[in-house]
Amino acid sequence: MRRFVVLAHELSADAEINLDDLPGAGRLDLLCRCVTSALLLSHDIRTDVRIDLLVDGYVVRFDGSELRRLNPDERSTAALIRDALGASGEAIGAMAATASPGVSIRKGDLESVLEDRSDRTIVQLHAEGRPVVELTPPENPVFVLSDHREFTDRERESLVEFADERVSLGPRALHADGAITVAHNYLDTGGFDAY
Amino acid sequence: MRRFVVLAHELSADAEINLDDLPGAGRLDLLCRCVTSALLLSHDIRTDVRIDLLVDGYVVRFDGSELRRLNPDERSTAALIRDALGASGEAIGAMAATASPGVSIRKGDLESVLEDRSDRTIVQLHAEGRPVVELTPPENPVFVLSDHREFTDRERESLVEFADERVSLGPRALHADGAITVAHNYLDTGGFDAY
Repeated sequence: MRRFVVLAHELSADAEINLDDLPGAGRLDLLCRCVTSALLLSHDIRTDVRIDLLVDGYVVRFDGSELRRLNPDERSTAALIRDALGASGEAIGAMAATASPGVSIRKGDLESVLEDRSDRTIVQLHAEGRPVVELTPPENPVFVLSDHREFTDRERESLVEFADERVSLGPRALHADGAITVAHNYLDTGGFDAY
Repeated sequence: MRRFVVLAHELSADAEINLDDLPGAGRLDLLCRCVTSALLLSHDIRTDVRIDLLVDGYVVRFDGSELRRLNPDERSTAALIRDALGASGEAIGAMAATASPGVSIRKGDLESVLEDRSDRTIVQLHAEGRPVVELTPPENPVFVLSDHREFTDRERESLVEFADERVSLGPRALHADGAITVAHNYLDTGGFDAY
């Protein structure tokens, strides 16, 4: 299974989300593109992928194996995230609340997402990491990315503790959704090898 | 210079574009993501990139060297495309009309875009093309992509005539915007070599 974890820094769990202004809603546009880049192929869903959006003390999870419907446009994906945040009141303790098939929300932070390291390779994407081509494609990678902001000091500390690898995808700084696309391509091709 | 050409098959030049329903406007959402994937880096514009959207007998061009403002979200990019299509009446003969800085429209089709082959390598992205890693990164590539539909027979004929290369970016069928992201990464890294 491939996993992506995206750290949202400007979106509040109780934000009034206006679908006509996604950038104004804590850069929800970017989070939507991360979700669709992680989960969609041309006319297909990647069922072996899960993406967690870390939003203000909550984990909004999209699970490709359970998703029924995900369209590629930002607005419809934003509505799914809005509905998940709207169900945050039902996420009590460690219990997740399901907002729609394959979309859930639970309380959690980066540590709680990363601390179960069984059979996973946690990969931090970083401009100064080693070239991704030097890494043997992991079986069960967890890629950790930030939104348009840098990682906070606390997130950096967690990553120092938990990340198995720190890799660079190239010399130009990509948007988070572009980085997800490139990471998938690297894995799809077995390290830019099998086409 | 890097160029991208995206063939739109469902958008009419005189469509009534509703910014609240971009998928319903000839999959304008997809075209917007192609534009931003081609032109944006994290907090930067790729000034050495041009993207042509071929829409219903017109060429809507975004030129990175002249763009003043381009936001990453679909809706604001859709407004730029809508405004360009709105200026189509001013595109007379071979003359382009400028709709906003760096965004223009002129009459044209795939042949007219491809026939000036001076110092360019025209690359058709195709599932059965040779692996992109076998290609030496061209200096001035022109990548030709289709939207969510297949190339038409006529487009295919033009590509047989004009394309210098037919390459595959991997074993999974990507969305056009994802293909643009991967193509950029391939070029940025000099063929997945320089990180």
